[in-house]
Amino acid sequence: MVTEREWTRGLAEFFGGVRSDVELGIGDDAAIVPCASGRSVIACDPVVGSVHFDDDAEPTAIGRKAVLRNLSDLAAMGARPTFAVVSVLLPAGTSDATRHDLFAGLRSAAADHGCEIVGGDCGATPGPLVVTVTVLGELVGEPLRRDAARVGDALFVSGPLGGSSCGRHLEPTPRFDIAEPLAKGKGVGGVIDVSDGLALDLRTMLDASDVPGAELREDAIPVHADAVAFAARTGRSPLEYAIGDGEDHELLFSLRQGVEPPPAVTGCVRIGTVCADSGMWLVGDRGRRALAPEGFQHDV
Amino acid sequence: MVTEREWTRGLAEFFGGVRSDVELGIGDDAAIVPCASGRSVIACDPVVGSVHFDDDAEPTAIGRKAVLRNLSDLAAMGARPTFAVVSVLLPAGTSDATRHDLFAGLRSAAADHGCEIVGGDCGATPGPLVVTVTVLGELVGEPLRRDAARVGDALFVSGPLGGSSCGRHLEPTPRFDIAEPLAKGKGVGGVIDVSDGLALDLRTMLDASDVPGAELREDAIPVHADAVAFAARTGRSPLEYAIGDGEDHELLFSLRQGVEPPPAVTGCVRIGTVCADSGMWLVGDRGRRALAPEGFQHDV
Repeated sequence: MVTEREWTRGLAEFFGGVRSDVELGIGDDAAIVPCASGRSVIACDPVVGSVHFDDDAEPTAIGRKAVLRNLSDLAAMGARPTFAVVSVLLPAGTSDATRHDLFAGLRSAAADHGCEIVGGDCGATPGPLVVTVTVLGELVGEPLRRDAARVGDALFVSGPLGGSSCGRHLEPTPRFDIAEPLAKGKGVGGVIDVSDGLALDLRTMLDASDVPGAELREDAIPVHADAVAFAARTGRSPLEYAIGDGEDHELLFSLRQGVEPPPAVTGCVRIGTVCADSGMWLVGDRGRRALAPEGFQHDV
Repeated sequence: MVTEREWTRGLAEFFGGVRSDVELGIGDDAAIVPCASGRSVIACDPVVGSVHFDDDAEPTAIGRKAVLRNLSDLAAMGARPTFAVVSVLLPAGTSDATRHDLFAGLRSAAADHGCEIVGGDCGATPGPLVVTVTVLGELVGEPLRRDAARVGDALFVSGPLGGSSCGRHLEPTPRFDIAEPLAKGKGVGGVIDVSDGLALDLRTMLDASDVPGAELREDAIPVHADAVAFAARTGRSPLEYAIGDGEDHELLFSLRQGVEPPPAVTGCVRIGTVCADSGMWLVGDRGRRALAPEGFQHDV
């Protein structure tokens, strides 16, 4: 049993030291952090036991996911992470070892991207484990907005999609490598991270941008090996998983007609075009068919 | 049933308009907000069903409490709130009306203090209602730190303590009226908000400040009428509630020897002195007795 003082000092040491510019970190009523650029990008998402991870998930992996899904939101804005605060609600009976591993996951995922956890809260809950992370970041160039797609834009994704629930969903990769050159580049349209599924996030981007529709080329959509593995078990088409599964955390973005991706943007695939026809369309060997804006739905 | 687009636009309208300086509010992967002073104060605390409120609490009151307890942390730092993000986890079967009232409580408490909710997330949980609020603020003067008490300082509280669980705990008052003149004043020592109980928060302040102890005058500690009402029912002393109850959210602060509170600081009561003796002591008609660093403990 540690005292409050030991616990707080332990936390300050555990989470501290990632950055040298923290004015006041863990241990007071609130943290004080610099904001060099004069504006902050801020995102906040929770993970919840048996919603965002299975009960048998490793605590370290849960902590990492809680941070990484928020960092992916920063990447999708063209922001670089700086600081984070975390709220951890532990079910009764959670062991010290589990809590430690959870905290270690939070710390390592944040530190991997130069982000320091500077505060928050740890309490008890009669419900499942809840880890809520709020991240701050600073823009590296122009903000990447989801409302900036225009008719005629070419649509790209930053990597293969589908089947993240095979396990990859616990370790999403925030695509800072793609987002930073886009934020510094020219002719960029709408940008969103694929968290709810390609079809649903595309619809969200089109709606936010007030453009009517998009046409995707069926054979251009990159399908992740996990989606192929899923399909082999279920007999469905791998493409269904690539289009409908969530938590890929790749970037979906549009570029103005004729604009090529910046040279530093590698591995991106052109999948279609923003069009003046209302609705979303999939074009392939079987002709042109409507694509429903349906994504992965969590079972609750 | 509303579409994602209608829902997001509705939220942006519902929470927007409190401030005129939001660069990008609800609706994208993250929000973008200005940070005029070059540094941010950040606090994050959750409220959880049957931990921080009873199951029959009004949704509006739950929303207000979730915001106000965080604003109290900003007040205790000498910061003025600017922006907030919220994560709301709703139990299955939560009605639209309940969700609306909860959101209305979040908005009204934030707007009361000039703070705009600019983003976050709303999802489902198999557990109790969880509302996690992260607030940003800017300092109005020198930071008010809990680690700045010194031996010889006089100890003050900003108002009467105890019995907040009678109902007052749902509507804490962030003491910006006291904090701002303190942050702009001279000779201020340690400052903390009384969230865990006077004895426990005093111990936390002493520990953070690396000072050995404090002596409180029993008859000087202001006792709230709610503590008197509690005591009348239980037969215990009202003082026990004033010392042990949490969620008062008054400020506990120290001033250097001989320094008077700034003129704008009204209604504060001197309750004792930071001393060189190790431990916390209560001095009264019955002599000098040890005060245990015990505060209100939530039953979980």
